[in-house]
Amino acid sequence: MKKYYLITPGPTPVPPEVASQSALPVLHHRTHEFGSVFDRIADGLKYVFQTKNDVFLLTSSGTGAMESAVANTLSPGDKAIVATSGSFGDRWGKICAVYGVQVVWIKEEWGKPIPPEKVREALKANPDAKAVFMTHTETSTGTVNDLKAIGAIVAETKAISIVDAISGLGGEELRMDDWKLDVVVSGSQKGLMTAPGLAFAACSPKAWALVEASKNVRFYFDYISLKKSIKSKETPFTPAVSLCASLDASLNMLRKDGIENVWARHRKLAKAARAGMQALGLPLFSAAPCSVLTAGSLPASVDGAKMVDWMRDEHGVSVAGGQEQLKGKIVRLAHMGYMDQFDLIIGLTTLEWALKKFGAQVPAGKAVQAAQEALV
Amino acid sequence: MKKYYLITPGPTPVPPEVASQSALPVLHHRTHEFGSVFDRIADGLKYVFQTKNDVFLLTSSGTGAMESAVANTLSPGDKAIVATSGSFGDRWGKICAVYGVQVVWIKEEWGKPIPPEKVREALKANPDAKAVFMTHTETSTGTVNDLKAIGAIVAETKAISIVDAISGLGGEELRMDDWKLDVVVSGSQKGLMTAPGLAFAACSPKAWALVEASKNVRFYFDYISLKKSIKSKETPFTPAVSLCASLDASLNMLRKDGIENVWARHRKLAKAARAGMQALGLPLFSAAPCSVLTAGSLPASVDGAKMVDWMRDEHGVSVAGGQEQLKGKIVRLAHMGYMDQFDLIIGLTTLEWALKKFGAQVPAGKAVQAAQEALV
Repeated sequence: MKKYYLITPGPTPVPPEVASQSALPVLHHRTHEFGSVFDRIADGLKYVFQTKNDVFLLTSSGTGAMESAVANTLSPGDKAIVATSGSFGDRWGKICAVYGVQVVWIKEEWGKPIPPEKVREALKANPDAKAVFMTHTETSTGTVNDLKAIGAIVAETKAISIVDAISGLGGEELRMDDWKLDVVVSGSQKGLMTAPGLAFAACSPKAWALVEASKNVRFYFDYISLKKSIKSKETPFTPAVSLCASLDASLNMLRKDGIENVWARHRKLAKAARAGMQALGLPLFSAAPCSVLTAGSLPASVDGAKMVDWMRDEHGVSVAGGQEQLKGKIVRLAHMGYMDQFDLIIGLTTLEWALKKFGAQVPAGKAVQAAQEALV
Repeated sequence: MKKYYLITPGPTPVPPEVASQSALPVLHHRTHEFGSVFDRIADGLKYVFQTKNDVFLLTSSGTGAMESAVANTLSPGDKAIVATSGSFGDRWGKICAVYGVQVVWIKEEWGKPIPPEKVREALKANPDAKAVFMTHTETSTGTVNDLKAIGAIVAETKAISIVDAISGLGGEELRMDDWKLDVVVSGSQKGLMTAPGLAFAACSPKAWALVEASKNVRFYFDYISLKKSIKSKETPFTPAVSLCASLDASLNMLRKDGIENVWARHRKLAKAARAGMQALGLPLFSAAPCSVLTAGSLPASVDGAKMVDWMRDEHGVSVAGGQEQLKGKIVRLAHMGYMDQFDLIIGLTTLEWALKKFGAQVPAGKAVQAAQEALV
């Protein structure tokens, strides 16, 4: 017997009452039964995005939604600012490059948040920039960006803000309208506690003017046909209806809990995760740690990639290692979506065993003790 | 109590042993457990496509896969032939237009198959055409095209053949390699008996040369990164892992049955559906009826759109009406994927009641009797 524990930053565990919805008979997508599901999802998404804007429903991974934001708001030759301090922030720049967008980079050291003042300077130096791309919670390092401050700065200019909130939505505080964010994209498989396969894009009126002017080629991801389809309570093409049924259930759970309580729960878990990580002797990698994932720096003697494999193969506990230049150098413990205090205890317990196994000096039991104290 | 019967051309019913896989705990997509699922799916898809070519796995609807074929093989300004006699064939032309492709139309009357000789003539008149787009089974009319003949004609030229096999794959005979087809796209929610959300694109070496030369912008749907990812047994971005688990189970069922037996089963159902439809006094709409769907022409006095709604609302039986210029004029009974002889009996029983309800003269019990006789 081996139980399987998913403590990774997406896909995340799906509550049984959500997962079981996907096993029920498939609804046809051109019926009023599905129309009701579609309506409730549209409403629930507005709630978790904290927006009055339309939120478009895509059948794709989160990266599809990221591409849709570039494809629908910009045109070849446009200039855009990409503010990044990690692997997912960099992805905005890669997509822009493919679309012939001239990228002005704000590259901050990995683990550091984007200083809002650098965005202000970049916008001053590039008054013709059409958009500023940023990341809500940078999953590769566990860093949260100050979107409230950056959103306010971008809002003073003609540029729009475009946010990847794939790992942060439904975990880390996000207020699209209050923070004046123009395009926010996300996916189903993180804070929204649904299996991967659905993605979302919310779009402000300021961004919509760019959508109407965009000369980019797009068909499947076209916001104009998606906007029309919202009125008819259906999607332009066959959506992943079984995942929609799951999402309907998970959005209902989030609404019952209350989004502010959900954010508070994640903040508490994050505090405990940081206490546990530090008690293991692992310095926090991020200078601005987020609420949905905690990254710890490993001692140079520990092979982090092998250690993460061992945790999964030996104990059935999936956590994340480092990406790109951080490969083998950090360990990342997620606490997002349907993960609770006991998932954290399991993660820290296994991490202590793993560090010992891979030759690190670890004080026995201190990590779980520290987390326990932070969780009461 | 109301039982729900899905007799529509996609989404189609999902077998319980397939649907339940999607409710199991989600696998992380960067693990060897998922690698094994990915491997089996890749193999199973080759089997149902009857090809040695790589089959790329996309998280999207079938239309996403259609767009991917245009985006990856052509460049702006290229010329392509689009052979169509229905709503889904027309979609190829719409996508081509969005991508700046110069379209040479072969427009055949709805319900007629594409005459292979017209493709030969179009290729002769347009030796610079890069591709010929076609449809395996045209779902809007229930018509099968002679892909073997058309494939052979295109293979003699420099052009590639690009086939929408979304509704036909896993129901209607299809032999990608033997029939010399270059790109074949499909989706999970029809003959493959899985919920919607996954799509596929298989690509021949002849087509691959165009992929490498294509100047179109694409990121999420890029075949070059998809090809690389096949070697590493994972997808470039987070796939719909729960749907992959379902697909793994359904491909296994198809392989156990044997694809030729699956085609034969659909042929038998189609024969019975045609006998039933004609016994109801509804002439077959298609001149070349396919094995996965039967369309019957309604008497002018019957409001087909209202009739189809009534069948669903009154009896829980979802069938399809007509699209575009056929709205209200035909009724379409699907027999694809996880639909058996009793689904057909249910469809015909309800259709007889519905025709009577909407004022048509119908001989009592004759449709089911005709189907019963054809099914023994």
